[in-house]
Amino acid sequence: MAKELTSMSENYSQWYNDLVVKADLAENSAVRGCMVIKPYGYAIWEKMQAELDHRFKETGHVNAYFPLFIPKSFFSKEAAHVEGFAKECAVVTHYRLKNDPNGKGVVVDPDAKLEEELIVRPTSETIIWHTYKNWIQSWRDLPILCNQWANVVRWEMRTRLFLRTAEFLWQEGHTAHATQQEAIEETYKMVNVYADFAENVMAMPVVIGHKSENERFAGALDTLCIEALMQDGKALQAGTSHFLGQNFSKAFDVQFANKEGKLEHVWASSWGVSTRLMGALVMAHSDDHGLVLPPKLAPFQVVIVPIYRSEEQLNAITEKVDVIIEKLKARGISVKFDFSDAKKPGWKFAEYELKGVPVRLAVGPRDLENGTIEVARRDTLTKEVVNVDGIDQYIEDLLENIQKSIYNKALDFRTEKTTVVDTWDEFKEVLKNKGGFISAHWDGTSETELQIKDETKATIRCVPLDAIEEEGTCVYSGKPSNKRVLFALSY
Amino acid sequence: MAKELTSMSENYSQWYNDLVVKADLAENSAVRGCMVIKPYGYAIWEKMQAELDHRFKETGHVNAYFPLFIPKSFFSKEAAHVEGFAKECAVVTHYRLKNDPNGKGVVVDPDAKLEEELIVRPTSETIIWHTYKNWIQSWRDLPILCNQWANVVRWEMRTRLFLRTAEFLWQEGHTAHATQQEAIEETYKMVNVYADFAENVMAMPVVIGHKSENERFAGALDTLCIEALMQDGKALQAGTSHFLGQNFSKAFDVQFANKEGKLEHVWASSWGVSTRLMGALVMAHSDDHGLVLPPKLAPFQVVIVPIYRSEEQLNAITEKVDVIIEKLKARGISVKFDFSDAKKPGWKFAEYELKGVPVRLAVGPRDLENGTIEVARRDTLTKEVVNVDGIDQYIEDLLENIQKSIYNKALDFRTEKTTVVDTWDEFKEVLKNKGGFISAHWDGTSETELQIKDETKATIRCVPLDAIEEEGTCVYSGKPSNKRVLFALSY
Repeated sequence: MAKELTSMSENYSQWYNDLVVKADLAENSAVRGCMVIKPYGYAIWEKMQAELDHRFKETGHVNAYFPLFIPKSFFSKEAAHVEGFAKECAVVTHYRLKNDPNGKGVVVDPDAKLEEELIVRPTSETIIWHTYKNWIQSWRDLPILCNQWANVVRWEMRTRLFLRTAEFLWQEGHTAHATQQEAIEETYKMVNVYADFAENVMAMPVVIGHKSENERFAGALDTLCIEALMQDGKALQAGTSHFLGQNFSKAFDVQFANKEGKLEHVWASSWGVSTRLMGALVMAHSDDHGLVLPPKLAPFQVVIVPIYRSEEQLNAITEKVDVIIEKLKARGISVKFDFSDAKKPGWKFAEYELKGVPVRLAVGPRDLENGTIEVARRDTLTKEVVNVDGIDQYIEDLLENIQKSIYNKALDFRTEKTTVVDTWDEFKEVLKNKGGFISAHWDGTSETELQIKDETKATIRCVPLDAIEEEGTCVYSGKPSNKRVLFALSY
Repeated sequence: MAKELTSMSENYSQWYNDLVVKADLAENSAVRGCMVIKPYGYAIWEKMQAELDHRFKETGHVNAYFPLFIPKSFFSKEAAHVEGFAKECAVVTHYRLKNDPNGKGVVVDPDAKLEEELIVRPTSETIIWHTYKNWIQSWRDLPILCNQWANVVRWEMRTRLFLRTAEFLWQEGHTAHATQQEAIEETYKMVNVYADFAENVMAMPVVIGHKSENERFAGALDTLCIEALMQDGKALQAGTSHFLGQNFSKAFDVQFANKEGKLEHVWASSWGVSTRLMGALVMAHSDDHGLVLPPKLAPFQVVIVPIYRSEEQLNAITEKVDVIIEKLKARGISVKFDFSDAKKPGWKFAEYELKGVPVRLAVGPRDLENGTIEVARRDTLTKEVVNVDGIDQYIEDLLENIQKSIYNKALDFRTEKTTVVDTWDEFKEVLKNKGGFISAHWDGTSETELQIKDETKATIRCVPLDAIEEEGTCVYSGKPSNKRVLFALSY
């Protein structure tokens, strides 16, 4: 291989990190915990954004932009929010540098101290609800269905590229409604949008469910989430949608006159996904050869590598390839023709495997003679020689096939790695030796949940929306339970 | 009118501010100098972004993302950069809040002080060139053609919505090249991309030229810019493209092995436009009735208002309108049908004039009988009744016509407001009574430039690329000059 990756089986965590860096997705920066998203990684993120943004707009949402900075005092206004959340933040205290009077360089100007410190947003509920107060007077002003694409900062101590970084990119939806029911419906609608995106675009099966009270967003009455399973058997929370009740409207005094002219507090939801999805995408599908990208997110879906010895051969190949490219583009398929002379075909094959390009075409002199082309698919690493006639239709079908195959493979993996467990010994045994999701009864108390976490590090990933009502006893406490929840180790 | 605007003639500055707020483009936030970009304003910005991003990609650029924070020490590395630039910045000194031990709320945790302060990026040359050092070893790694869409912060003391805010959104391109010539060509290429965008999308004529040394970007060897004229006769710098020479590659020690294996410093350009363009857009075209938006940037290009007394009439109108909407959408024209009952047609007319919707259609019972529709264009405020057959073609042509008319109107205005001046008295007289661009000879010295600025507040907006070589004498000093430059008061 062109660039050596640690194998998954040897060291999963190192494999992940190697892959993110060597496939040119992202790298660490000079600033602790902040990453640089490299062009190839950013191109995937742009595709995610476009797909999500389209879904948001289709469901009636509009984009807006709110300030990066939040006055410190805003964080004290919603008690649960500050308690559960807002501590590890970047704090701006000054607004000017000056030349160092004692030497070279610059120092912070002590005279330029802010009266009130500003916090770099870790999430924007507070500043947005402060703003909504001026936007909402009457029921006619509702609902407000805003989304924001933005950067946020949470001062994480241990960071990992995409999965946990001090600064990350995300979208945050913040909606305001006249009734509780409407806000709850919105919360469900958006978690379903996320699930649709995860499954149909990322080819990543997810479980939709409620977070337990312990795992809920600070300030929410209910947090819905999508949970995905990574190839090392750990779960990853890939998106959340919160029903906030009237907590923020009360904290920021946002009331509206209802149709009877009476003042009521507004009902709220918020929901978000982040560049963490990039980490999920990598860990859901990739292998020891590199990335495996679903065609819907690949920066280019097809790469064409010419095999030639002479300039003349390259010219003849290029002539054929140009026709193929035109046909593929006409079908909306993105293609790169790598005719560069600097690297050999073998190096290119390895490089595009590493980069996860779904389909690779190779054309050599013999293909010209025979009217054939070699087609290799990244997900299965299989090759076949096909006739060049009708190649565009063939590739279009193949890309659809790959998109589905990747999803099915991940679904099979999850099914295999989801274990129904009824005893505590079995719980520990499965967690230790098999991993994955454990479907078990739980007595519904935070106490039990925390004891399980203390003993095993496993957390309740969610109470699935489709959990069946059934009589049971808690796997840990033996107390009664009426449905199974999903436990797992997690990112 | 629905919402009262101050008139342009009465108080231009107040007119601008009223319009930005009342047309729902943006508003001030709880954080000094930071704005909230409201959904209607953000929708225009999104269209600007899409048009620009398309042009960047067409010219071979890719997007990436670099950290929000920059270590303080980076600013000392490029001497001219820190001298000219980096002083008024938001400085992060701490990374944690804690509960106030003496009461409610939160305070900054004094134990969580950063070893080195972090600066919220005012621009990203330093962090990006620090990153490029790891990306560039050989001539094969060049060129690097990256762009970043991001927020930046400059602690401005006097702020105005869009025109000058502490936080603003922008894009910044940062390119690395093997040769001086290639970097210079890139600098010109991108200022031409900006000019194309300004003229063909924003319908705003611009002059392309060089900045004088005084007005150059801190760290640049040459700054190219596009300058537009606002309706109050002041100029606005709408975009800049900098040739940075080897200043940043030397400051951050970025060298590459050339084809002969010798190490050379890399050549650089950077270029950017920001949400300031939103301010330019407002001031270039709008009037006392509100915004005038070019069709290419209007969130919706056509609004349809039904005129009805009964539910039955509305139903009949809706049936007709649905057909029209389908036809318009098939042509890629965006339409809003405002059938809401909450407001009267007159209110709606004024509202959509305020919002600058290029074309308004009104349909009443008589139109149904006659097979007609009333078409009003926002730019000229003229109305006509046209046959409903072929309305889609009519509207498509009309939108093209409006796009061109708005541009031509602005161009005529600029032509009228550009005065060739040869004496200092005339210079002052024109500046005082007429405003606009003054085309005058200048001796090329910073001294003269600064004296003119001191006496009149006028600055050299640019030395136009198409300035004609001619013998002349400086309008201020009487010294020899070989070309005219453009002076103006400016934003």
